[in-house]
Amino acid sequence: MSHNTIGHLFRFTTWGESHGPAIGCVVDGCPPGIQLTEGDIQVFLDKRRPGSSKFVTQRKEADQVKILSGVFEDESTDGPRTTGAPISMLIENTDQRSKDYSEIKERYRPGHADMSYDAKYGLRDYRGGGRSSARETANRVAAGAIARKILGADVEIKGALIQMGTELIDGDNWDWDEVDNNPFWCPDVEAAKHWESYLDGVRKSGNSVGGIIEVQATGVPAGWGAPVYGKLDTDIAAGLMSINAAKGAEIGAGFASAAFSGTDNADEMRIEDGKPKFLTNNAGGILGGISNGDTIVARLAIKPTSSILTPVKSITSAGKEIDIRTKGRHDPCVAIRGVPVAEAMLACVLADHMLRHRGQVG
Amino acid sequence: MSHNTIGHLFRFTTWGESHGPAIGCVVDGCPPGIQLTEGDIQVFLDKRRPGSSKFVTQRKEADQVKILSGVFEDESTDGPRTTGAPISMLIENTDQRSKDYSEIKERYRPGHADMSYDAKYGLRDYRGGGRSSARETANRVAAGAIARKILGADVEIKGALIQMGTELIDGDNWDWDEVDNNPFWCPDVEAAKHWESYLDGVRKSGNSVGGIIEVQATGVPAGWGAPVYGKLDTDIAAGLMSINAAKGAEIGAGFASAAFSGTDNADEMRIEDGKPKFLTNNAGGILGGISNGDTIVARLAIKPTSSILTPVKSITSAGKEIDIRTKGRHDPCVAIRGVPVAEAMLACVLADHMLRHRGQVG
Amino acid sequence: MSHNTIGHLFRFTTWGESHGPAIGCVVDGCPPGIQLTEGDIQVFLDKRRPGSSKFVTQRKEADQVKILSGVFEDESTDGPRTTGAPISMLIENTDQRSKDYSEIKERYRPGHADMSYDAKYGLRDYRGGGRSSARETANRVAAGAIARKILGADVEIKGALIQMGTELIDGDNWDWDEVDNNPFWCPDVEAAKHWESYLDGVRKSGNSVGGIIEVQATGVPAGWGAPVYGKLDTDIAAGLMSINAAKGAEIGAGFASAAFSGTDNADEMRIEDGKPKFLTNNAGGILGGISNGDTIVARLAIKPTSSILTPVKSITSAGKEIDIRTKGRHDPCVAIRGVPVAEAMLACVLADHMLRHRGQVG
Amino acid sequence: MSHNTIGHLFRFTTWGESHGPAIGCVVDGCPPGIQLTEGDIQVFLDKRRPGSSKFVTQRKEADQVKILSGVFEDESTDGPRTTGAPISMLIENTDQRSKDYSEIKERYRPGHADMSYDAKYGLRDYRGGGRSSARETANRVAAGAIARKILGADVEIKGALIQMGTELIDGDNWDWDEVDNNPFWCPDVEAAKHWESYLDGVRKSGNSVGGIIEVQATGVPAGWGAPVYGKLDTDIAAGLMSINAAKGAEIGAGFASAAFSGTDNADEMRIEDGKPKFLTNNAGGILGGISNGDTIVARLAIKPTSSILTPVKSITSAGKEIDIRTKGRHDPCVAIRGVPVAEAMLACVLADHMLRHRGQVG
Repeated sequence: MSHNTIGHLFRFTTWGESHGPAIGCVVDGCPPGIQLTEGDIQVFLDKRRPGSSKFVTQRKEADQVKILSGVFEDESTDGPRTTGAPISMLIENTDQRSKDYSEIKERYRPGHADMSYDAKYGLRDYRGGGRSSARETANRVAAGAIARKILGADVEIKGALIQMGTELIDGDNWDWDEVDNNPFWCPDVEAAKHWESYLDGVRKSGNSVGGIIEVQATGVPAGWGAPVYGKLDTDIAAGLMSINAAKGAEIGAGFASAAFSGTDNADEMRIEDGKPKFLTNNAGGILGGISNGDTIVARLAIKPTSSILTPVKSITSAGKEIDIRTKGRHDPCVAIRGVPVAEAMLACVLADHMLRHRGQVG
Repeated sequence: MSHNTIGHLFRFTTWGESHGPAIGCVVDGCPPGIQLTEGDIQVFLDKRRPGSSKFVTQRKEADQVKILSGVFEDESTDGPRTTGAPISMLIENTDQRSKDYSEIKERYRPGHADMSYDAKYGLRDYRGGGRSSARETANRVAAGAIARKILGADVEIKGALIQMGTELIDGDNWDWDEVDNNPFWCPDVEAAKHWESYLDGVRKSGNSVGGIIEVQATGVPAGWGAPVYGKLDTDIAAGLMSINAAKGAEIGAGFASAAFSGTDNADEMRIEDGKPKFLTNNAGGILGGISNGDTIVARLAIKPTSSILTPVKSITSAGKEIDIRTKGRHDPCVAIRGVPVAEAMLACVLADHMLRHRGQVG
Repeated sequence: MSHNTIGHLFRFTTWGESHGPAIGCVVDGCPPGIQLTEGDIQVFLDKRRPGSSKFVTQRKEADQVKILSGVFEDESTDGPRTTGAPISMLIENTDQRSKDYSEIKERYRPGHADMSYDAKYGLRDYRGGGRSSARETANRVAAGAIARKILGADVEIKGALIQMGTELIDGDNWDWDEVDNNPFWCPDVEAAKHWESYLDGVRKSGNSVGGIIEVQATGVPAGWGAPVYGKLDTDIAAGLMSINAAKGAEIGAGFASAAFSGTDNADEMRIEDGKPKFLTNNAGGILGGISNGDTIVARLAIKPTSSILTPVKSITSAGKEIDIRTKGRHDPCVAIRGVPVAEAMLACVLADHMLRHRGQVG
Repeated sequence: MSHNTIGHLFRFTTWGESHGPAIGCVVDGCPPGIQLTEGDIQVFLDKRRPGSSKFVTQRKEADQVKILSGVFEDESTDGPRTTGAPISMLIENTDQRSKDYSEIKERYRPGHADMSYDAKYGLRDYRGGGRSSARETANRVAAGAIARKILGADVEIKGALIQMGTELIDGDNWDWDEVDNNPFWCPDVEAAKHWESYLDGVRKSGNSVGGIIEVQATGVPAGWGAPVYGKLDTDIAAGLMSINAAKGAEIGAGFASAAFSGTDNADEMRIEDGKPKFLTNNAGGILGGISNGDTIVARLAIKPTSSILTPVKSITSAGKEIDIRTKGRHDPCVAIRGVPVAEAMLACVLADHMLRHRGQVG
């Protein structure tokens, strides 16, 4: 990972600011011959799109993706197929309200990158967060849709919000079928009901909350990944941590495993239907940096949205002390829209490792 | 990060197995003119060395580092100095007991990479864990010693064990001066006393526990890092997650921030002595992937040592169900020796970003 | 260099096919604060543009570049300036004649990548060369314009065509001021006159010729580059060799140096105005992979345009033997339009090494 | 390529100076399960070794390689096999004469990297060329031996010296069987005879000459390589240009193709035994950056050895004008020992692209 590119064999580069003409993504290294339409990508973008419920930002972005290269169609290809060339995708920015940015320009919003960008670059595009806007994550979702195509039907990637602010789900209620039935990607139907009023309260009080996302991949064969610095879990954690507002990532039992004893933690093995079977999955499907055939499980901690109406102490770029409150159309819990983004990053890392494994081992 | 290399401008590649003739590390991209002796590196290796107390593995490895290249000395250099060429370091394996590996060869130890390595490569060097041995981390410590030299005296990197198994420190007792006074790198003198008996109990019961390590870097100026995929926090998390037995990494408030409200989480700012000052540090010193001038804070979750005397269910490579107990000289809490390793990884990531920042911005 | 990306700290990724909606380029790693307008880039694109004389392809492409990201303007920036974020540039394809591609689809044109693309990918976008079209080089020119900005006014990059087919310039007539006065970028006014009728003859006979391009960079300070695999001359040669139709690259005396004796080849040194001065420049400004302060000199051999009207023996994808002649609007000597492309690649490699040097050495 | 590493999936990193304790190489990304002994590598090192005839340097280096990691043997592996882990190889420096380096320390030898290293790094290991010594190329040969194993028996890589100073071979006399029968790797038995007296004359006059090396690979299937920046020919040229004293690289007809017409240059195709057959090979086996199934052909220009007994004008690091002659045991034509090095680089680039192709396309 360097600059604005992630991945090794399957890799993508993103560009664009919140208030420029467009954002976009160049996916490179995609295998040839894969059927791919804009619709295949759009379905995932629609999951991340602003304005889909009252619990996410009311900014109105159509987030319509255009594929500009890397896909070709004639009668022999039976619909558009990837050619192995880079796939350039572009999403126009359509909801750029003209407004007065004179205040935001010089005021450092706590929790935002205003101050650190200025310290690094000496200038910044302050309109709508510029390069640090969460809008960038639409590109990840687009790349992730292609990654899923590479992984094929055997690998299924799913995500859920398992904690919103102080409110946790009850793991015993986990039902993947419920995830699409509520505006939170919550797998616990009871929790989801409660979260509506909880988040309404947060929003109305001019505040925000964080959350924890869990992503899983089933169907990954044993053997993807590499020891030491190319570990599959390292790359998954890095992919998740690169998402805006991420503050922590864990695999399998994660931080909880610190309190475990060796006997608690051991994922015992038996043979089932002639194949190895793990009786538990504290490992999260990865041993020594390499997949073991069990479900890949990772979690991501997202901090509360930094843009809040409640005034907080801050400073200006000129060194003046101020109080600042951030108006605008902000997500009260940005972790909600982070779910499809986290799924996408997991898909991209897995697709990269699938190709890397095939390259080294055949 | 790919294969066995980590870093971009400051980068290193490690090699070697637990029971081969040696392990080693090639550090590339080091700036020229830096004073560097084997002693500068050995002091950090000695912190990680086996056999230093009864609470770590009793394997007897001298872990004496030799510098084979990249350093030059004549009367003009006033002691050995780096030349800008790759620095090759080698550590001989001296405590390889000849023993019968016929059992371990075919038996998959739960929690170890035995099964996943076999699945990937079709064969493995099973003696002492081979490439997946924690012995590899000695190389990281050696590279980290060079990274500290690059960072210079203004940047200080420290680490501590803040949780051992179920036992946590009391944050109010935190005293960095205590870290070197107990065999656990524990910053809480009261906890450290208790941990002795606690870990003794664990060890005597043929079991093990995990732990949580915290590392900090002070003196990092605002501006290191990059947005999106080259984020400083992403690279720190990845560096930590690449350590053996790592299951989670977090920055600043980390997973706890999920439960925070936006007002709780906001690190308010004031001006002190004409410079920006953060009143809290939930960000862990990083905003938008770029350092903000505050202390860098990261934590790493380490799972319990997988080698335990208590029998657990497992299988052989031939698909036979067995019970397995792992004899040998193992760490009851491998997180202890992980502290200097985590410090080293933080140092390496910071040195890389220092050079990367200088490259792009000057 | 991997896939569709080149460079390390200053790097760019290109995408797009000849007959898609657009081609484009994402430049990453650009230092912040550099003044940059579309006009700064357009001036170089206009040098490469088709249709500028009867000696180049008559395809009509406006080659108008749009900057979509990475540049910001307000009253404090005094015109648009780079922000350090990725600069996305897009050039629309405007001259896509609808035509029948059924012939080209299955016929392998000798010298083209038709057969090798099919062998690799199993399918290809055959319209106008698809990804292998020389149109891709417009992106290089756009990236090169930014690289020149990074290098600053002290580094001057120039290119010339010094051989066209069998016709060479007379080195004694070299006059850089003449390069812009003829349609060939020829530095020898006498040769340029002759080349008009020569190339007319080639064109009218339905044939084509190759050529040799020389590029030079003055003002590069001693010290850029690196030993061994990051050599400045290696990267320049690679940058040039990545251009379409390239068959060879050389530095300084190049292939001629094979016949030299050690005394002939030695670039002797004296002191002039208190600074080192080389009496000759067989080295082409690079010693041991590192610039020595003298003019950087490189040459690039370009093969004849493969699209010719004269019929040649070939085969179809189905394995049928055919004769093929390639109609269309082709350059009789593609090396002409290669001159601004070669200049751009030299600029990009130098900008990358300028930043890399600054990163490692400060 | 960056710093001291080359390659993408199959990659190696070299380290070491001429007069340190050893030089070495870490090969990473090697597929598992390949039979590999030190003897497999030594046979190629012996071809490059100093002192093998009076036409090469009389320095006495045994160049005995030791494999320190990445290879494992037990009864199931039937001899040592690669494990997929990094293969560390070490070659001790055994012929380091203690001598007075006070002169060389401050005197810049024309054609050497003395001046440019000092300009970059501010200091250098001046003993025997330090990092810029041709001794580094032994590592390339070692890596190349492993690359050949990966490529397998179907791919054959051969090299020859086709020009020594002013003396060329007669292509009509080309006989690969002769290459091992003379001390020059010369494929023309008549030329080889003449070269003995020619090079003796050069050597006795205290001078040196350059040369041109040709390398070929047969058996490479169509489809390896990639368009644009990951071109197979770009990477071959870069691999060759990274060799010490390289001044130019070309593929197929190379620089000669500049004078060709399109009809001359077209490699016409027919079907033979049901497979595509090229009637000529001006392309050198690569079209659009991707192998076409024909023999890969590349050439490398090597400048004359810069260390010559004849005095030449130079300066010291302090800016004093001097005359300098370089005593010592130098190769009168370093291109001779460059032949196995060029072969090795071709092998390494091909092995990398074989794995990269497999990764993307399967």
